[in-house]
Amino acid sequence: MYNYRLTIQYDGGRYKGWQRLGKGELTIQDILEQVLSELYSQEIEVIGCSRTDAGVHAIGQVANFYLSQEIPLESIKQNMNQTLPEDIKITEVLSVPMQFHSRYSANEKTYLYQIWNKEYPNPFLRKYSMFLAQKLDIKRMREAGTYFLGTHDFTAFSNAKTNKKSMERQIYSIELKEINGLLQIRIRGNGFLYNMVRWMVGTLVEVGLGNLQPEEIPEIITSRQRNRTGNLAPAWGLYLEKIGYE
Amino acid sequence: MYNYRLTIQYDGGRYKGWQRLGKGELTIQDILEQVLSELYSQEIEVIGCSRTDAGVHAIGQVANFYLSQEIPLESIKQNMNQTLPEDIKITEVLSVPMQFHSRYSANEKTYLYQIWNKEYPNPFLRKYSMFLAQKLDIKRMREAGTYFLGTHDFTAFSNAKTNKKSMERQIYSIELKEINGLLQIRIRGNGFLYNMVRWMVGTLVEVGLGNLQPEEIPEIITSRQRNRTGNLAPAWGLYLEKIGYE
Repeated sequence: MYNYRLTIQYDGGRYKGWQRLGKGELTIQDILEQVLSELYSQEIEVIGCSRTDAGVHAIGQVANFYLSQEIPLESIKQNMNQTLPEDIKITEVLSVPMQFHSRYSANEKTYLYQIWNKEYPNPFLRKYSMFLAQKLDIKRMREAGTYFLGTHDFTAFSNAKTNKKSMERQIYSIELKEINGLLQIRIRGNGFLYNMVRWMVGTLVEVGLGNLQPEEIPEIITSRQRNRTGNLAPAWGLYLEKIGYE
Repeated sequence: MYNYRLTIQYDGGRYKGWQRLGKGELTIQDILEQVLSELYSQEIEVIGCSRTDAGVHAIGQVANFYLSQEIPLESIKQNMNQTLPEDIKITEVLSVPMQFHSRYSANEKTYLYQIWNKEYPNPFLRKYSMFLAQKLDIKRMREAGTYFLGTHDFTAFSNAKTNKKSMERQIYSIELKEINGLLQIRIRGNGFLYNMVRWMVGTLVEVGLGNLQPEEIPEIITSRQRNRTGNLAPAWGLYLEKIGYE
């Protein structure tokens, strides 16, 4: 058996997220598995790193799959890209050791969130950013961001059902960059709980609007209560940008 | 009567171009006239500067219209943006003298053409750029571009039906900029014939692929023959970027 690693870009707009759901719901994993299984005439399971939500995009999702035969990497990439729909494309194929697992081997993830912050909506970014007409105070948002850095229990920023798993995650960096009205928020960490980035962004937005003070973030985190954050930022502004491996 | 000038952005993807066609075909002009006529309860004609083709986008289309009453500019902008579909938005409303005519008063136009030039297609730019897997020689394309500068009869680069009108146009500048695989070609001139930018880009692409030499451009121009150029570049890579007025 051979183990192949894929880097995948997708416009998540018309999909019910990454993970296979059955019941005729269209997901990225379904499409990739169909395409690979047909191309190489064997049943193939695609193991994705991040289970992106319905509507969320990816610039650098990573997945791996096993094949019984060895195939040139360039040929896998070309065959897949010719068969995949135009909103899902493969940017890289690597041959990796059998023990490589796209999820368990990952040690870092970067998410990008885009906000179009002008008084009028942008027709070109309507499906790729959250629109906010009220001017955000980016300096205050940056200040708020620093309170997320480090290791915390992020229960307050997740829809995950409480179970035995740890709710602790480490945030390495939060960067806010604004160019001509487009605000890009980049959050890098060792992992993220379900919906965590979207709750964090929604909370930063409340700070930017003046409805929350940066100094309130630590309290919200330690409260571990779901009802203390800002709103859930919409899925179409979110991109899984990059996944890091040792 | 009052004369108002609009700056308009649109994703041209689902429209049959700017100009009203009747027969139930959806155009940008139709939508703007419907929205304004309903908002201000009078029949309003919207005079556009450039009759962009089916599928072509605009970042800075300009149009003007007459109203019997005076309305605050900010209110026109807000009312229109609330009523318009999400792929057409107004970025500016100005009050202009009665003699201002969006087409006749214009003295400069800038078009932008986007080419995604990597070995795999980009899911996010699939509706906003032409995809070319074969690496383009941008230096040669720049060289070819210089031959378009100045005043020429552009019959060879147009689908316009020959009539008494002048086929002469003046090109002020052509800029090619490439960042991470996205090639942006900006062409600025005093005006453009029907399909002229798309034929010019298609011809530059042939130079970039090595199928034409930069030195052949002057011959193609002077031939005034429609069959000497490269292919017509697809509409979805083209943007009317800016219109200049005295």
